[in-house]
Amino acid sequence: MSLDAVLNQIDSDLTPAIDRLMELLRIPSISTDPAHKESCDKAAEWLVADLKSIGIAAEKRVTPGCPMVVGHVGEDGDGPHVLFYGHYDVQPVDPLNLWNRDPFDPAIEDTENGQVIRGRGSSDDKGQLMTFVEACRAWKAVHGKMPCRITFFFEGEEESGSPSLIPFLTENAAELKADLALVCDTSMVSRGVPSIASQLRGMLKDEFTIIGPRIDLHSGHYGGPGLNPLREISRIVASFYDEETGKVAVEGFYEGVHEVPEDQLRQWAGCGFDEAEYLNSVGYTRPHGEKGYSTLEQQWARPTLEVNGLWGGYNGAGSKTVIPSQAHCKITCRLVGDMDPDALRRKIRKHVEDRLSPDAKVVWDNDLEGSPASVMNISRPEFEAARTALSDEWNREAVFTGMGGSIPVVGYFKSILGLDAMLVGFANDDDAIHSPNEKYDVQSFHKGIRSWARILDALTK
Amino acid sequence: MSLDAVLNQIDSDLTPAIDRLMELLRIPSISTDPAHKESCDKAAEWLVADLKSIGIAAEKRVTPGCPMVVGHVGEDGDGPHVLFYGHYDVQPVDPLNLWNRDPFDPAIEDTENGQVIRGRGSSDDKGQLMTFVEACRAWKAVHGKMPCRITFFFEGEEESGSPSLIPFLTENAAELKADLALVCDTSMVSRGVPSIASQLRGMLKDEFTIIGPRIDLHSGHYGGPGLNPLREISRIVASFYDEETGKVAVEGFYEGVHEVPEDQLRQWAGCGFDEAEYLNSVGYTRPHGEKGYSTLEQQWARPTLEVNGLWGGYNGAGSKTVIPSQAHCKITCRLVGDMDPDALRRKIRKHVEDRLSPDAKVVWDNDLEGSPASVMNISRPEFEAARTALSDEWNREAVFTGMGGSIPVVGYFKSILGLDAMLVGFANDDDAIHSPNEKYDVQSFHKGIRSWARILDALTK
Repeated sequence: MSLDAVLNQIDSDLTPAIDRLMELLRIPSISTDPAHKESCDKAAEWLVADLKSIGIAAEKRVTPGCPMVVGHVGEDGDGPHVLFYGHYDVQPVDPLNLWNRDPFDPAIEDTENGQVIRGRGSSDDKGQLMTFVEACRAWKAVHGKMPCRITFFFEGEEESGSPSLIPFLTENAAELKADLALVCDTSMVSRGVPSIASQLRGMLKDEFTIIGPRIDLHSGHYGGPGLNPLREISRIVASFYDEETGKVAVEGFYEGVHEVPEDQLRQWAGCGFDEAEYLNSVGYTRPHGEKGYSTLEQQWARPTLEVNGLWGGYNGAGSKTVIPSQAHCKITCRLVGDMDPDALRRKIRKHVEDRLSPDAKVVWDNDLEGSPASVMNISRPEFEAARTALSDEWNREAVFTGMGGSIPVVGYFKSILGLDAMLVGFANDDDAIHSPNEKYDVQSFHKGIRSWARILDALTK
Repeated sequence: MSLDAVLNQIDSDLTPAIDRLMELLRIPSISTDPAHKESCDKAAEWLVADLKSIGIAAEKRVTPGCPMVVGHVGEDGDGPHVLFYGHYDVQPVDPLNLWNRDPFDPAIEDTENGQVIRGRGSSDDKGQLMTFVEACRAWKAVHGKMPCRITFFFEGEEESGSPSLIPFLTENAAELKADLALVCDTSMVSRGVPSIASQLRGMLKDEFTIIGPRIDLHSGHYGGPGLNPLREISRIVASFYDEETGKVAVEGFYEGVHEVPEDQLRQWAGCGFDEAEYLNSVGYTRPHGEKGYSTLEQQWARPTLEVNGLWGGYNGAGSKTVIPSQAHCKITCRLVGDMDPDALRRKIRKHVEDRLSPDAKVVWDNDLEGSPASVMNISRPEFEAARTALSDEWNREAVFTGMGGSIPVVGYFKSILGLDAMLVGFANDDDAIHSPNEKYDVQSFHKGIRSWARILDALTK
C-alpha cells in the first residue's frame, strides 16, 4: 500500500521532476576542461540545495579539483544504511556542429522510441543520478521520512579521471562507511530490459607525442630525406593491432585475461541483448573486434586499446606543405579480469619505444591514471531483492549483465571503504553519451525513479 | 662603370630598402585562409604603389581569389623583354607559440650567421621578390630608366594552389608574352653558393576523411566491437610506405620516374651541398628517404608522398573516452620526371579504397590540384650570362641545382605563354620557410639585389 502511494506520487510529480533535471542540465559542468571549473562548483551547489529541500543534511566539500557533495539522512537503527553514488560532471561537447541544439539548453523531443530529454549529461550521469534523488523526494512526500539511513555521495570529476576521489574517500572513510553502495551510472542491456551490472571493465589512459625534426619543415625542401612524425605515429598505432585476429599486438597485453565461463555465456545469451540494434544503430553491419568472440564478449569481457585522439600538422582550410615537428596520440585501454594497469602501461610504452625510428623521440604524459576491472558480489541478498523489484516495475525479468564501461569508484568503495556496490542503471545504448545529441528517454527517467522506490522498499522490508 | 654606380647605389640604399620590405612583411597576406583576404588585397596595393614610385605602369588585377599585380616598363626594341615573377602571399603561421615574436611584426635579429630579417614571408617570397624590385629601383636612380623592357607579374595565391593562375595567364597571354621569365623563389644549395635551379619537383595535393560509426561512440560501450576510424586511418597511412626500402608502396607510384644521369650526379656532387648542415640544422643524424639514393637525390630527384595533416577524435585538455566518427588526412606528393598528377591521384585513391574495412567509408576533397615536374632550358645563353654575373657577385662559381620544391607557374609559363624560365634565388635552407621563425639573411637580401643588377646588366650587354 505504502509503496503504491509513493509510485503514484512519482507519477503525478513527473513534470516538475523533469523541470528540476533541466535546471541541472543547463549548468555546463565539463570537468575535464579547466575553463568550466566554476560551472562544476555551480552544479555541486545546485545539488546541495536540492538535497536540503527534501530534508537531507548536505554539504559541498572542497577538493583540489571539483567539489564533492555529501549528504546524510536517517539514524543508526532504521534499517540498512546505503550510500548512493552519482556524478554531476559531464563530457566535453565537441564537435558542436553535430548537435541538433545547444548541448546545455536541454529540451524534450519526440522520437520514434518516444519522448527523450536531449542535452549533455541527460543520461551520463545527471539524469540517472536524479532518478534516485526523485525517488527519495517522493518517499519523503508520502511518508515524511526516508525508508532507511542514506548517505548521498556525488562526484564532479568522474569524466576527468577522479583525481580527488581516492584522497577524499581515504580522509572521510569513517563518515562514508555504509552497508552497501548503490550506483546509477550504467545502462540496460537493451530497451526495456532491467539490468544489474555484475562486472565492469577497468581503464588505462595514456598519451604520447612523437617528435621528429626540431621545427616544422617545408615538404619540398625536406620531403624525402625528412622523417615525418605523422608517418611515424601512423606506423606505430597500426602496429598496436594484429589485423588477422583483431587482437592487440602489444606483447603481454592479454596477461590476466580469463575466458568467460560457459554458464555465464549461456546466461548472457539469454539476457535480451539486441545485437542488431546495438550495431545497426551506429552504422555497423558486424562486430569489428577479436575474431572468435561474440559481440557481447567483445564489449563486456575482452580488453581493448583504443585511440581516442590523433593529431599533428595542418588541419585548417586549404593545404599546407609542411612536415610537422610533432604528432600526438591519446589512448585508453579497457581492462578485464586481473589485468594490472601499471604493468600494462609499461608494456605499451615499451612497444612504442621499441619501434621508434632513429632521430624520432617519444614524450609521455605522466598524469593519466588507470584502474583494474571489477566484479560485483551478486551473492548478497540485496541483489536478489533488487532483481525482483526491477522485474515488477518493468514487467520483464531483470538480468545480470557485464558492462563495457569503467566505473573506477566501485573498486575504491571496496578497497577503501570495504563496501560492495550494486549497479542499477536505466540508460539505453542509443543515448549517445560522450557524443553529440546525448539524450535520456523520459521512460528511463520515469521508470528509473519508480524502480528506485521499489528497490528501497524491497531493501527495507 | 655604369654597373658599379648601380651597385654603389644599392649599397647606400640598403637601410631604406629593408624598411620597405618590413612594410610589406607587416601585411598578413595568408592566402590559404579566407579570413585574410583583405590583407592579400592590401599587399597587392602596396606593391602597385611601390612599382609606380619607380615609374612602372602597375595595376592590381582582380581575380575570383587574391588579385594579381601586373606592371610594364620600357618599349619594344630596348633590349630583351623579361617577365619577372614573384608571389606576395605567405604561409599560415601556426603553431604561433613556437615563434620568438609576432610573425607579422618583423625585425632585424643578430644570429651566429650574421643579421637576419625575421618574420613570415621574409624569405618566401616577399624578401626574394623585393630583391629584383630594389635592383630596378637602383638602376632607375642611376640611369633614369630600366636596362630593358620588363614586365612585373606578382601572384597572391602561390601558397594556396594558384586557383586563378591558369585562367589569368590564358586571358592575358598576349599582354604577358616576353623573351624569358625570371623567378626569384628558390634557395641556394648552401650558404654563399649562388645557384640557378635547373629542375623542380611537381606537386599533387589530396585530402580524405575516413568515416566509421554514424556518431562519436563511448569507448566503453563500443570499445571492442566498434570500428575506430583513427585505427583505420593509421593502418592506411602506414600502408603507403615500404619501411624496408623507404619507398612509397602505392602500386604504380614510380611510373614516369627516371634515374639521374651519371654526369648530373657528378655535377651535383661538386655543387657545394652541405649534407651535414642540411640534416643537423633540423635535428637529423641521417637521411630517412629511399635507401640507395643520396640525400640530394632524395630531395631533388625522387618523388614523395607526405602526410601534412592528420587528425580525429579529442585533442583538448585531459582525456575523452571516445571512438570518433571521423578521421582526416591531408597529403601532398612531390613529382619528378614524367609522373602524371592525375594518374597518380587515381592510384593513391585506389590504394586507400582497396584497404578500407567493411563499414568504413572514405570521402575525398576534390578541390585540390596537381602539377608535373619541370626542367629548365639551361642551354639558352641567358643562363650562362647569369651564371657569370652570379659568380662575380658571390666570388664563388655559380651552380646549376635541382630543387625539392614545386613552382607550378614555371610549367604554366611554358605551356600557356611559351616562355622559358630562369630561377635564381638567394634563400638558405635554414630560413624556416613554412615554419615558425621564418627569416631571410640580410646578406641574401643585399647580395640578392646586387645579383639582379649584375644579371640585368649581363642580359642587356
